[in-house]
Amino acid sequence: MANYSKGLEGVIAAETKLSFIDGEKGVLEYLGIPIGELATYSTFEETVFLLWNGRLPTKAELESFNAEIRKRYDLGKEVARMVLDMPQTAEPMHVIRTLVSALGLYDPKPNAIDLASVRDKALTVLAQTPTMLAYFQHHRKGTPIVLPDRNLGLAENFLYMLNGKRPTPTMAKALDVCLVLHTDHGLNNSTFSARSVISTESDLYSALTAAIGSLRGPLHGGANEGVMKMLNQIPSVDAAEAFIQDKLAKKEKIPGFGHRVYKSYDPRAKHLKVLAKQLAEDTGNAGLYEKSARIEAVMEREKAAKGIYPNVDFYSATTYHCIGLPLDLFTPMFVVGRVGGWSAHILEQLADNRLYRPDVDYKGPHAVSYTPIEKR
Amino acid sequence: MANYSKGLEGVIAAETKLSFIDGEKGVLEYLGIPIGELATYSTFEETVFLLWNGRLPTKAELESFNAEIRKRYDLGKEVARMVLDMPQTAEPMHVIRTLVSALGLYDPKPNAIDLASVRDKALTVLAQTPTMLAYFQHHRKGTPIVLPDRNLGLAENFLYMLNGKRPTPTMAKALDVCLVLHTDHGLNNSTFSARSVISTESDLYSALTAAIGSLRGPLHGGANEGVMKMLNQIPSVDAAEAFIQDKLAKKEKIPGFGHRVYKSYDPRAKHLKVLAKQLAEDTGNAGLYEKSARIEAVMEREKAAKGIYPNVDFYSATTYHCIGLPLDLFTPMFVVGRVGGWSAHILEQLADNRLYRPDVDYKGPHAVSYTPIEKR
Repeated sequence: MANYSKGLEGVIAAETKLSFIDGEKGVLEYLGIPIGELATYSTFEETVFLLWNGRLPTKAELESFNAEIRKRYDLGKEVARMVLDMPQTAEPMHVIRTLVSALGLYDPKPNAIDLASVRDKALTVLAQTPTMLAYFQHHRKGTPIVLPDRNLGLAENFLYMLNGKRPTPTMAKALDVCLVLHTDHGLNNSTFSARSVISTESDLYSALTAAIGSLRGPLHGGANEGVMKMLNQIPSVDAAEAFIQDKLAKKEKIPGFGHRVYKSYDPRAKHLKVLAKQLAEDTGNAGLYEKSARIEAVMEREKAAKGIYPNVDFYSATTYHCIGLPLDLFTPMFVVGRVGGWSAHILEQLADNRLYRPDVDYKGPHAVSYTPIEKR
Repeated sequence: MANYSKGLEGVIAAETKLSFIDGEKGVLEYLGIPIGELATYSTFEETVFLLWNGRLPTKAELESFNAEIRKRYDLGKEVARMVLDMPQTAEPMHVIRTLVSALGLYDPKPNAIDLASVRDKALTVLAQTPTMLAYFQHHRKGTPIVLPDRNLGLAENFLYMLNGKRPTPTMAKALDVCLVLHTDHGLNNSTFSARSVISTESDLYSALTAAIGSLRGPLHGGANEGVMKMLNQIPSVDAAEAFIQDKLAKKEKIPGFGHRVYKSYDPRAKHLKVLAKQLAEDTGNAGLYEKSARIEAVMEREKAAKGIYPNVDFYSATTYHCIGLPLDLFTPMFVVGRVGGWSAHILEQLADNRLYRPDVDYKGPHAVSYTPIEKR
């Protein structure tokens, strides 16, 4: 049969005006604006507005958008109760997937898919995922929950709820930039899965739940945990060289290096590297940054690794560690940012929808008779 | 850019040995066995074994498979508690999506994706979705929960839990056949979404949760509710003709007719029609069947509708109504059957996986400068 491309590689599955990637040149743009400019000048909230509305907000629009998000930080008492009823041993990605799904139970019109309703529901998910994660973290540690503070922006408020105290400006900015860098990234698997699910005209909760499930996978969002595990395995900066050489000799993958799309330096990694360095120094984790930088230097030098650059996960690990995030909240943090991009794609898909219903190539037998059980 | 086919129509997205559809000839086969033979001679449990193992079971294997399913009918006390804590107003598709997701919280190894583990977890989901639905139905009606009975097969046990008494053999057989007919159907959207999500090497719960979310959509599993709503709108058998003529004149779609794949009689509808007739007579709902048959006759006669045949949803409506299923449990019932097919596709995808990561065609601007907020 015609043109079967495994994993749909090279197959165009959507038209988009949201984000653009040039993997050869290392370019990422949201609505045409280079990611570096957004990371430097914008905020996560403003970036989400950009993606949902196709343009940057005016001052009044941004103020009202921020206010709307802050108003929704608080979980309803039923959802808060649900967090506290969850087993403390549950894995955070299963927790956040289940809680976002549960928001559909308490929405009086969960299935509304006109664009205004979807935007409104997405705002709630965007505002509440950080609260869900912070509450669950306290629940499993047995420490008291910290209520959200509406005077703070999303990133700062999350760190406040998580750590029980106001973060330093560097920490808050670092998380905010991380969220901006993670908001959207073309038709990655979770975004594609969300578009596929919404194409049945289902609902925002169904599509976002699918996306979270996809992001959990080690071949997608789950990869950032691997970097931190590797950093923890390497006892010192000087031990990095031998560790990497050994892995390369065994032809093992190095977590945080290489990307199916980028064949040059991942533009997100470039920004994260600068951020990670400053943050590590500020928080007494300079050694962790040094270890990462050494790994990158070894990888750059090694012939075997030519053309394999650090990806977004590589310096995320140091950044997340320095802001106090436990390892298994790395991928859930990615969820918080990507809710912005997923929702933008869901809106874009709904605005000009066609059901995803691809073909299969059937490789089995035909017209087989049912053999009665006594004759098997 | 090359070959953009909206909705991936005509694009091959997977190879499969599970089910085969010939839309022109009206053929559906599972592992090569025509659906009619399975509907006549097999059971839902045996059909699931067939899809998960690529062959029909021996007598001993089937007995052990059945026993394993029955052992798992009971919900753990935490999940049962979660059902009873849900708002009574929640929509059942949001309920079942959230509960299947929640199973991941209580699984000590939720992320295991070796095929034996996935089969084992899928068995639990298969066994427990009927219990979840029956419990939720009692919860929202305020009637006492009926515990599952391990002496009964899956379909019979579900009707027992739902209605509080043993169903007649005709009712149990009708539901069993419905489940067989709904178990698998090529690369429909929910199956495709499940394959996409598992391709990140995530986990069974994530993939099934995505599939349920997809099936909720009115362009997919949600369509069967529309048929029942239409039947309820038509006051009598004789009123059917004018109702359909009016809809056709307004160029409105007739729920339960036409299918993106079938251009001839849907082989599942053929079997359901026979079943629905007998069941309707047995349960004092002959009028409902007559109404459906009249609609089909009008559609067959009308030029405008040439080549548009009843699909699986059309006679499902009468069948589900006759076995006592409320309207908003029609699609969740579809979930129970399709868990078998989704899990089979998840196993098939994992056995020879490649991450789904299609391309987009970017239609927006490039190299746009970030305009400072005071200049907007």
